[in-house]
Amino acid sequence: MEKLLRCCRIRSPLVRECLAECLGVYVMILFGCGSVAQSVTSQEKNGQYLSINLGFAFGVTFGVFVSRGVSGGHLNPAVTLSLCVLRRHPWLKLPFYTIFQVLGAFLAAATVALQYYDAIQNYSGGQLTVSGPNATAGIFCTYPADYLSLWGGIIDQVIGTAALLLCILALGDQRNTSIPDYLQPLLAGATVLVIGMSMGSNSGYALNPARDLGPRIFTYIAGWGDEVFKAGGGWWWVPLVAPCIGALVGTLIYELLIEAHHPPLFSETQSSCQETSDNETSDKTNLELEKVEPEGGKSI
Amino acid sequence: MEKLLRCCRIRSPLVRECLAECLGVYVMILFGCGSVAQSVTSQEKNGQYLSINLGFAFGVTFGVFVSRGVSGGHLNPAVTLSLCVLRRHPWLKLPFYTIFQVLGAFLAAATVALQYYDAIQNYSGGQLTVSGPNATAGIFCTYPADYLSLWGGIIDQVIGTAALLLCILALGDQRNTSIPDYLQPLLAGATVLVIGMSMGSNSGYALNPARDLGPRIFTYIAGWGDEVFKAGGGWWWVPLVAPCIGALVGTLIYELLIEAHHPPLFSETQSSCQETSDNETSDKTNLELEKVEPEGGKSI
Amino acid sequence: MEKLLRCCRIRSPLVRECLAECLGVYVMILFGCGSVAQSVTSQEKNGQYLSINLGFAFGVTFGVFVSRGVSGGHLNPAVTLSLCVLRRHPWLKLPFYTIFQVLGAFLAAATVALQYYDAIQNYSGGQLTVSGPNATAGIFCTYPADYLSLWGGIIDQVIGTAALLLCILALGDQRNTSIPDYLQPLLAGATVLVIGMSMGSNSGYALNPARDLGPRIFTYIAGWGDEVFKAGGGWWWVPLVAPCIGALVGTLIYELLIEAHHPPLFSETQSSCQETSDNETSDKTNLELEKVEPEGGKSI
Amino acid sequence: MEKLLRCCRIRSPLVRECLAECLGVYVMILFGCGSVAQSVTSQEKNGQYLSINLGFAFGVTFGVFVSRGVSGGHLNPAVTLSLCVLRRHPWLKLPFYTIFQVLGAFLAAATVALQYYDAIQNYSGGQLTVSGPNATAGIFCTYPADYLSLWGGIIDQVIGTAALLLCILALGDQRNTSIPDYLQPLLAGATVLVIGMSMGSNSGYALNPARDLGPRIFTYIAGWGDEVFKAGGGWWWVPLVAPCIGALVGTLIYELLIEAHHPPLFSETQSSCQETSDNETSDKTNLELEKVEPEGGKSI
Repeated sequence: MEKLLRCCRIRSPLVRECLAECLGVYVMILFGCGSVAQSVTSQEKNGQYLSINLGFAFGVTFGVFVSRGVSGGHLNPAVTLSLCVLRRHPWLKLPFYTIFQVLGAFLAAATVALQYYDAIQNYSGGQLTVSGPNATAGIFCTYPADYLSLWGGIIDQVIGTAALLLCILALGDQRNTSIPDYLQPLLAGATVLVIGMSMGSNSGYALNPARDLGPRIFTYIAGWGDEVFKAGGGWWWVPLVAPCIGALVGTLIYELLIEAHHPPLFSETQSSCQETSDNETSDKTNLELEKVEPEGGKSI
Repeated sequence: MEKLLRCCRIRSPLVRECLAECLGVYVMILFGCGSVAQSVTSQEKNGQYLSINLGFAFGVTFGVFVSRGVSGGHLNPAVTLSLCVLRRHPWLKLPFYTIFQVLGAFLAAATVALQYYDAIQNYSGGQLTVSGPNATAGIFCTYPADYLSLWGGIIDQVIGTAALLLCILALGDQRNTSIPDYLQPLLAGATVLVIGMSMGSNSGYALNPARDLGPRIFTYIAGWGDEVFKAGGGWWWVPLVAPCIGALVGTLIYELLIEAHHPPLFSETQSSCQETSDNETSDKTNLELEKVEPEGGKSI
Repeated sequence: MEKLLRCCRIRSPLVRECLAECLGVYVMILFGCGSVAQSVTSQEKNGQYLSINLGFAFGVTFGVFVSRGVSGGHLNPAVTLSLCVLRRHPWLKLPFYTIFQVLGAFLAAATVALQYYDAIQNYSGGQLTVSGPNATAGIFCTYPADYLSLWGGIIDQVIGTAALLLCILALGDQRNTSIPDYLQPLLAGATVLVIGMSMGSNSGYALNPARDLGPRIFTYIAGWGDEVFKAGGGWWWVPLVAPCIGALVGTLIYELLIEAHHPPLFSETQSSCQETSDNETSDKTNLELEKVEPEGGKSI
Repeated sequence: MEKLLRCCRIRSPLVRECLAECLGVYVMILFGCGSVAQSVTSQEKNGQYLSINLGFAFGVTFGVFVSRGVSGGHLNPAVTLSLCVLRRHPWLKLPFYTIFQVLGAFLAAATVALQYYDAIQNYSGGQLTVSGPNATAGIFCTYPADYLSLWGGIIDQVIGTAALLLCILALGDQRNTSIPDYLQPLLAGATVLVIGMSMGSNSGYALNPARDLGPRIFTYIAGWGDEVFKAGGGWWWVPLVAPCIGALVGTLIYELLIEAHHPPLFSETQSSCQETSDNETSDKTNLELEKVEPEGGKSI
């Protein structure tokens, strides 16, 4: 088997990264939407809102574990976008990452539908509907609460994704937190957990264009029909656009309030003299970083 | 963008620390009060007491992660006070820390109110009330249970905050526990989690003057009116005063029962001869600490 | 006592490994089936689906902790099979591991039945039944939901075990995730937790031939009779066969999408020239592995 | 304040250790019984069986963190007994540890009663009873379920404490698991969590003579009367005796199945020649231990 695998080796880094992103999002949505399916089709007997929160949280954790060593484990076009803006990721890769992220979410939705085929038939009586007492479209993608206005939904997604990026950037900022590599997927999962518990009830905390679009396209094809795009007053575009805005807002807040004020490193001082526009600067800086201790005492 | 950020760099350590404390408390309250808002406005469908406990716990964790590298991540005037008493933090910074901690909590309450605007309107029928069946003031700050006497409330807050400080000091005492830096925010969150589960039902475990005062001022301004200060027999000052007393009690217990008896370090012996009143002594000692093994076997 | 123990020392590695696998599975099922027993016999007062999920998750964690240093902590014939296919484990040990894994599960089921003897008598009124309102066979092994077709059940177990192996291989792939040894039992438990939350309601997520067969044989002997093999349309063989297929599918997916494409190590390049068919190659490679950084920025 | 503390320094290791055990058990019971009090007096609104499980689990975690660096963090006479039998702890200290463990539990029960005074009055209508609809004695110590026979209760406590020791010895066996020091209190807490979820409903998983006796004496004194000793057919002695038996059973199983078969270390081989009966041998061995890799592949 080892020989067989050696033959299949792909040498292009971009293809490898796209496969890893695809598999990472696949794992995330498989666990996330699976936990919604379990909760809905068992009528909350074998799962509740808490298990859905945990399903998406561990979905993120394992999705990042699966892909991080190869592609960086973004799993979210809004995250990729923020990293591009911060010049920590090449803009050129953004569309490729996004396509494979959506593809992974689509395939995971299909797998969940396959695994829960009997359960969904039993629960819905064979009628695949988007709203009503036996609606099952909510297993796959997000819909707003009845009371939510359009602007309310946009604000909800902007705040939620801003909080996500704020935490993720802090976790990854070695000059602030110095968390080891292997703990970061767990803490990324914890971030999604707490956002699901504190910002989830308005519109189901998509926070991620790929997470929402892939499964929505799947339900459109698989029999739920164009109601999946019409429902909630044409809600579908909000989880595509608002998370991107929110990610940029969160990035800006973290950079302005924390990261911009880290004391300059020796290497940065030099590079600002030489005005190097080298793409790799930020990476190099990373290697030379030095931890700066706060002046006051730490609380813990 | 990098250049832009470089221009905004603030060089004053105190301003940086105040910004970090403000953002840290903001994150803590955003997740904490957000989880209460989700639980209340969904009528416990999308959240229960457990998710509120987890919301505040992870709020503390990520709040500390966001701010710890810069300001030490106190997030609580009572904690800052204890550290000042222990001479691990300069007294001069206490008022600045406190003001920005309250400000962060105020801003977070405003953000939660914005995000849950539609939900609160829908739940309360547009009436912002402090008590009654559709009360929503409890989303933001704490009120005592009906059965609680004033002295009972004070004792409750003193014991709760004493337990908090006892744990936090143990976690940070490198001669006792030697926990790595990056785990401490998680364990601080766990401390708040277990206090919420074991000491939360009397009066909502404020444990923190800033956590309570900031959101209370927000609700006063935003339409809940002066009832927020009158309710519970003028309860509002208890979560400001009692946690400070409790923090000192907890600090005293830990110091008297554990920390005072650590065998003297070489450097301490010297410094006590020289009677240095240098402010930095405790920090220096930290660097020279040596782990002393207990005599008996460890249970685990 | 030390001397006594020194006398009992077994020198055969295989016997030691079999004992460790047996004890590991014993611990896993003791906690797992114990949590089902607690939930069933207390009529969900002292346990719910969530506590069953946590019981099996921590059961896996502590089962792996107990056995990992000696036997590798497989605890599952489907896992052992996958490692044999990947040539990371000798085929010769497969039957021995399997027998002792089943034995451990059998003994644990007997212990749970002993500990909950009074409770089961009280709950079932002394009638040990497989189905009906007071059924207690579900405490020990898995039965499908009423709505589930045979093919649906097979697909469910294949997908579930594939997801399990996908995660486990990622966690153990040092060139991808570099997780320290001591965290892996915790993350293996977390994998089982999230699978229980997202793929548990169709047929109780056996995912493991030993976990299901051992307790089923126990219930057959202990008084539930041959209904334990007849129930669910002769369901009993599905959790024996389907997890093995699923484990291979999951292994294949991870190898094809991620592991096959890791850049060749220096030692591999050499060994492929020499065409060594040495059994130990994969182990040696492990020691010489070098972490390869992804090109793009990591999200966290 | 530092000077003051320096004056109070106690130099006797045994006194320091006893204080640490006392404070450790105090923290454990404060959180553990506090979470029961919250659940009972709020009529399961602000706490359920799960929060009680978590309360005791984190109670153990923080209790061990508080005391471990000084006294080893036993917190349980049954654990101390096992360590004495294994010659990892001097027999002489056993009675001192036990007395201070019981004292810590007594003081914690008093603190919980103080903090929940109003709540208990409100819930019980001022009648402190051991059984009946408004019973409150169960907040402090354990009572058996109605269906449980005496032998059933003894078996329950023996199995539970055996499982506890099995896990704790595995976690601390550096030749098996090599878990860092700072994670062990967390994993000890997780052990208690899973035991509470899988072995808690028969008689409330005391597992610890001190945890049960201290609070029982408190309730006897504080107004619940001698019914606390009579209830459950004179149940009170079972959680004192059975855990000690269980701890020895669990220790024996782990030693016989796992630890006895670790390959001899160089130093052990030597010391067995010299037949040193030195008390410190086991400690010395610890320092010279070498991790032995299993032959087969690890699952994860």
